[in-house]
Amino acid sequence: MAATKSPVVDIHTHVYPPSYIELLKSRDKIPYIRSFPPSSALRLVILPAEDTESTSRGRPVGAEYYDISKKVEFMDRHSIDISVISLANPWLDWVPAADAAEAARGINDEVNEECGKYPGRLFAFATLPLSGGKNVIEKEISRLKSLKHMRGIILGTTGLGKGLDDPDLLPIFRALQDAKLPIFLHPHYGLPSSVWGERANDYGHVLPLALGFPMETTIAITRMILAGVFEKVPELEMILAHSGGTLPFLAGRIESCIEHDAHLKAEGKLGKGRKTVWEILKKNIYLDAVVYSEVGLNAAIQASGKDRIMFGTDHPFFPPLEGENETWASVETNYEAIFGSLGSGTEESLAALGGNAVRVLNLVV
Amino acid sequence: MAATKSPVVDIHTHVYPPSYIELLKSRDKIPYIRSFPPSSALRLVILPAEDTESTSRGRPVGAEYYDISKKVEFMDRHSIDISVISLANPWLDWVPAADAAEAARGINDEVNEECGKYPGRLFAFATLPLSGGKNVIEKEISRLKSLKHMRGIILGTTGLGKGLDDPDLLPIFRALQDAKLPIFLHPHYGLPSSVWGERANDYGHVLPLALGFPMETTIAITRMILAGVFEKVPELEMILAHSGGTLPFLAGRIESCIEHDAHLKAEGKLGKGRKTVWEILKKNIYLDAVVYSEVGLNAAIQASGKDRIMFGTDHPFFPPLEGENETWASVETNYEAIFGSLGSGTEESLAALGGNAVRVLNLVV
Repeated sequence: MAATKSPVVDIHTHVYPPSYIELLKSRDKIPYIRSFPPSSALRLVILPAEDTESTSRGRPVGAEYYDISKKVEFMDRHSIDISVISLANPWLDWVPAADAAEAARGINDEVNEECGKYPGRLFAFATLPLSGGKNVIEKEISRLKSLKHMRGIILGTTGLGKGLDDPDLLPIFRALQDAKLPIFLHPHYGLPSSVWGERANDYGHVLPLALGFPMETTIAITRMILAGVFEKVPELEMILAHSGGTLPFLAGRIESCIEHDAHLKAEGKLGKGRKTVWEILKKNIYLDAVVYSEVGLNAAIQASGKDRIMFGTDHPFFPPLEGENETWASVETNYEAIFGSLGSGTEESLAALGGNAVRVLNLVV
Repeated sequence: MAATKSPVVDIHTHVYPPSYIELLKSRDKIPYIRSFPPSSALRLVILPAEDTESTSRGRPVGAEYYDISKKVEFMDRHSIDISVISLANPWLDWVPAADAAEAARGINDEVNEECGKYPGRLFAFATLPLSGGKNVIEKEISRLKSLKHMRGIILGTTGLGKGLDDPDLLPIFRALQDAKLPIFLHPHYGLPSSVWGERANDYGHVLPLALGFPMETTIAITRMILAGVFEKVPELEMILAHSGGTLPFLAGRIESCIEHDAHLKAEGKLGKGRKTVWEILKKNIYLDAVVYSEVGLNAAIQASGKDRIMFGTDHPFFPPLEGENETWASVETNYEAIFGSLGSGTEESLAALGGNAVRVLNLVV
């Protein structure tokens, strides 16, 4: 199915290009891909909490992880016209500094080439060589212009190692702003495992995935807001994974706490001229629609705007547990939330399903 | 103003009765009340993150903390007919086991007596002697029936030291269920400070208060859900502070992660008969309306129900920064959210402002 006038666009969908799979297979600590005898099946382990005997230890690595034709099959099965693919976490955070430039170039080139195999159907968010230092990062940002299918970059929450409120990131943010490359902010590290308590292993991966991920995103973007990043880099565009983590729900509380913080005011850290959280939500932030409920999606829409919501699937994660399912429940849940919140076939739902992404990310070949 | 047919009820409003102030003044570590020379003014420090020279070190302790007539003045100024007062965090979590029974009895009696000074206007949530062990706790729960103004208990997230998914808490939860005493779940400890990053002190108290508190509540209630507490104690009633932390927004993601967790299913931890998060939200959970925005309040209402939302202020915290304000901005923001979400003078807004609390907590003398 070619892109139509009202295409469905999936902006939250991950790939493990073959060279990244090889990189992960070559490792003996997290993140890694390996088999756990007696089984010979390969499994991907990306979080420490997943790497204990008492859990199912990561997840099976099937062809949908690395074979781009499986991505397109998945798209066809779920009526998705265009996907903006991104390398899955933890990206290249752990690559030695000396190897960072080459790793990022190789993977970005490979992802760009894979997009080229399905003209008009695949675009991508690039991966930055964060461990390589400022010059290496800026050079790769500059090089991305030459990659036809790149429409932004995916970024975790650690930045250069100190989080996204690190002043040393400001030149990087400015370079992305100037290159008109939005940041797709995505969690990976979650929260320190002590918060899950002694029984965490009884609950499978639920706590780190369901709570740790969105809380990590919320903390990262709030630290950026408090550091004044959006005053200093006023045109920076961020697309927040999982509908902003919990930012739409907490925006009011964050605003109230900022207003009531005598220390913040006395120091003039965020002076009279600061942008409010609400202003940032409507000016600098876009939200994906990967929130699995009308309740969450309504909050995301009300916080950011109907013109700032973008459909996503989180493929290849959350696959059907029963092998016979024709479509994935995780995808259907997010479709249903959009239809429930915005109606079926309405201008608003078409915008959320794809129109917003096409406009913001310029998804034309 | 006496309670009217549609009273306004504040269910989230804290007190520091004089004996609790004395207890805190007698301490030399957090939580404590002391002066910081050269100033002789007393300040309350309740969080480690507040106790560094680089922050404003806690908050001033004014008469509104301990003088119950100031509470009533505040209520009159903000058109609040009834308050359900509760001891402020960290309650009695830190009291030595041998002293727990007496401390809880003394404080619960004192709070009950203060309510008696303003008949029909003040009710209370009691404090449990958690460090005293099961028998001491159950004895105090049983004794609460004799205290005329008690309508539930306030509880932090640590329980007996291992969190609220601790199986040893089940008898306590059953005793509260059988005594028809709802639990007002309130955060205190936030998240480990490492998540706030190196620049946290630059942001005053915003990160731990705006994010740490609601995230702590969300984690605590989700751990209870995953432990099957609401299947094992099916009539347990919980009122969640700050509109559930972030539970309304994340409920869909939590449900999706539970459904997709092969480990959880294989182990049968939460079998086919489990209650969904949505069912628990509509059966066992009430939410206060202390969320400072229409966006958050709408999500709370949609998740839990118009008949399960209860107005609150968080008094005496978030006072006006300018001494001349007649009313507190933090209170007005929460009023405005209710009017914005449910209309002014509508049946739904009157229910949220007080009707729900009167019904659920039986607020008649």
